[in-house]
Order: sequence, then C-alpha cells, then structure tokens
Amino acid sequence: MSKQPDPTRRSERSRQAILAAARELVSEVGYAKLTIEAIAARAGVGKQTIYRWWPSKGAVVFDSILALSEPSADSGMALPDTGDIEADLKVVMRATVAEFADPAFEAPIRALTTEIINDPGLAAQYREKLAGPVDEAKKARLRSAQRAGQIAADADLDLALELLYAPLFQRWLLRSGPLTPEYADTLVDLFLKAMRPPLRH
Amino acid sequence: MSKQPDPTRRSERSRQAILAAARELVSEVGYAKLTIEAIAARAGVGKQTIYRWWPSKGAVVFDSILALSEPSADSGMALPDTGDIEADLKVVMRATVAEFADPAFEAPIRALTTEIINDPGLAAQYREKLAGPVDEAKKARLRSAQRAGQIAADADLDLALELLYAPLFQRWLLRSGPLTPEYADTLVDLFLKAMRPPLRH
Repeated sequence: MSKQPDPTRRSERSRQAILAAARELVSEVGYAKLTIEAIAARAGVGKQTIYRWWPSKGAVVFDSILALSEPSADSGMALPDTGDIEADLKVVMRATVAEFADPAFEAPIRALTTEIINDPGLAAQYREKLAGPVDEAKKARLRSAQRAGQIAADADLDLALELLYAPLFQRWLLRSGPLTPEYADTLVDLFLKAMRPPLRH
Repeated sequence: MSKQPDPTRRSERSRQAILAAARELVSEVGYAKLTIEAIAARAGVGKQTIYRWWPSKGAVVFDSILALSEPSADSGMALPDTGDIEADLKVVMRATVAEFADPAFEAPIRALTTEIINDPGLAAQYREKLAGPVDEAKKARLRSAQRAGQIAADADLDLALELLYAPLFQRWLLRSGPLTPEYADTLVDLFLKAMRPPLRH
C-alpha cells in the first residue's frame, strides 16, 4: 500500500478519462455505434486498460452515467430525510429537474434511453444496475413517510415512483414543456395529494 | 360525381395500402431508414401516387398512425362524457393500456417515439399534428369535469394530462412493468385524488 501513490493516482485519472470519453461519445454517436476502441482513443489509454476494469461496452457506459451522480455519493444514494416529506421531495425533484435541463447531463442519458427503448436486454440491464438501486433508495424515503403517516400505508410504491417521476421524464424526453423549479414543486404537491392517507374520523 | 364509383373505391384501397405499408415499414426499419420508394413498393403503387396525397415521409407516417384510431372517428376525437369522470376515464385508460399492450399497435409508435426523442423538429410536428389535437380532446373532457366540480377549477390541465398518461407512457416505453386493466384503474384513482377540488367547510 505504501510507495504506490503515483500509480493509484494515475489509475484514477485514467478511469475518469475513460468515463468522460464514454459519456461524450455516447452523446455524439449513440450507443449502437459506440466502440471500446473509440473510448480508448478519446481517453488516451489502451483498449486493454478498459477491458481490465470493465467486461463490456454496456458496463462502461453504465458506470459513466452512474459517475455523474458521484458528487452526492458520500451519502450513498439515500434521499434526504428531515422528517418533512414535502420539503425533502422538493429538494430532490428540483435537483432532478435541473439535471435534466442541463445539456451536458441529459445528452448521454437521452442516447442511452434511445437504445433502451429498442433493446429489451439493455432495458433489463439498466433496471438492474442503474434504475433499480436508485428506485430502492427513493422507495426507502417513501417508506419512512409511510411510517410517519404522511403517505398512505397501502400505496403501491412502484406506481408511486412512476407518478412522481414519469411526468418529468416524458416532458424531458419529448421536449413538451419547460423544466423549472416551479414545475418540480407542483409535481410534488400533486404527488403528495394523490398519496395522502385516508382521513380519520 | 356520378359514374366514378370505381376510381373512388380504388383510391381508398390505395390510400389504405399506403398507410398500412408505412406503418409496417416504420416498425421494421425505423423512421430514419424508411423511404417513400419502399412504401410505394410495399403498397403496390407508384411513388407519384404517394406524393399526390402527402408532401413528405413524415406526413404519411403521421397519417398512418392517426389511422389506427379511425374506428372511433365517428365521434371525432371526443372522450366519452356520461357525467361520471371516474367511469369515463377508466374506459379511456383501459382502452389506451390495451392498445399499448398490443404489438401491432405499439411497434410503429415505438419507432416514431425513438425518432421524436432525437429530432426536435419531428417532435414539434408530432405535437402539432398528433399529440396536440388528441390532448385538446382530453382537456375538453377534464374541463367538463371542472365545471361539474369533480376536478379542481385551478388545475393546470397540461400537467394533469402528464400525471394521467406519463406513468403509462414510461412503463410502456421502458417495459418496466405490466400493462393491465387494474393498472389503468389505479392510475385513474390516483389521478382523481390528486385533482380533487379542495373540501368546502
């Protein structure tokens, strides 16, 4: 472990260069035409360096998109939980809306989504590696709100996530309306109204 | 007008053959690779026959997808309005879910959606010619429900349509869950709860 500070740092630099190259290239040429060779050339590394760390093109692209969320990785994928579900979801949804409104963030996700739509195998991989873990973190926050009596105890949480995120996903994907903080807030308000527990009499 | 029954009938046969060919080919090869030549060959007509009726490839494809809904064209695009918004929306959403679960229906829409995602110009055409008029018909039904006090008078109807349809669109597009009549019903229930007018005290 001692005496190896430089190789470790160089490895991390290479890893970041590969992920950035994968992200750029998937935006530029699409997933179908993306090659490991092109990623290696853009990153300035050998093909073998990529294959040492990733088994496939799909794996690099998934990691390159996961890496976009790494700044918040110190808290894992957990959503904020202050006890105030409305405030917490508004923070999360405003951040999500801002990400999808950012061209540098949205371009690789748009390219990957295009491929997923037409490739059920890739869609399954996407669910397992990317969407699944993120959805679990979101559902953990909703379960906490259920325990606090803020969301109906019998709510279907998969459908709940669709209700909260799908309007934003569709508006972004079809470019059918503005992505603003106000939009994020209104979505959260409607979501919480739909999820409200029955009134006790 | 008299003496021309045969040409009229032959025209309608050609028109239907062209629309069917466009729909089949867009599913098979995708919008980008679709050509007027291929549609003409599949439909057994000359290229000039197509250009006589449609100015562009996009126009034929839009009409071919619009034609899928023509069986209900006797009522225009209007949604049922029995006065019972829950029952009416459940009829509509069950039918929509069934359509998206039908491979013959969903394949051309999936192909077109793929192109729309990556072509803002086509997305704008799609909104103007297909989604726009359909959305207006849906909003007319929601306005009727607003007048009946079943939906909040100040609801944003564009966002309302997203809340009702986007979960289904996303589940279909990403193949992330089953498309069943129960799913349609639950969506309508959650939607109406979110849209409910404030209680009067």
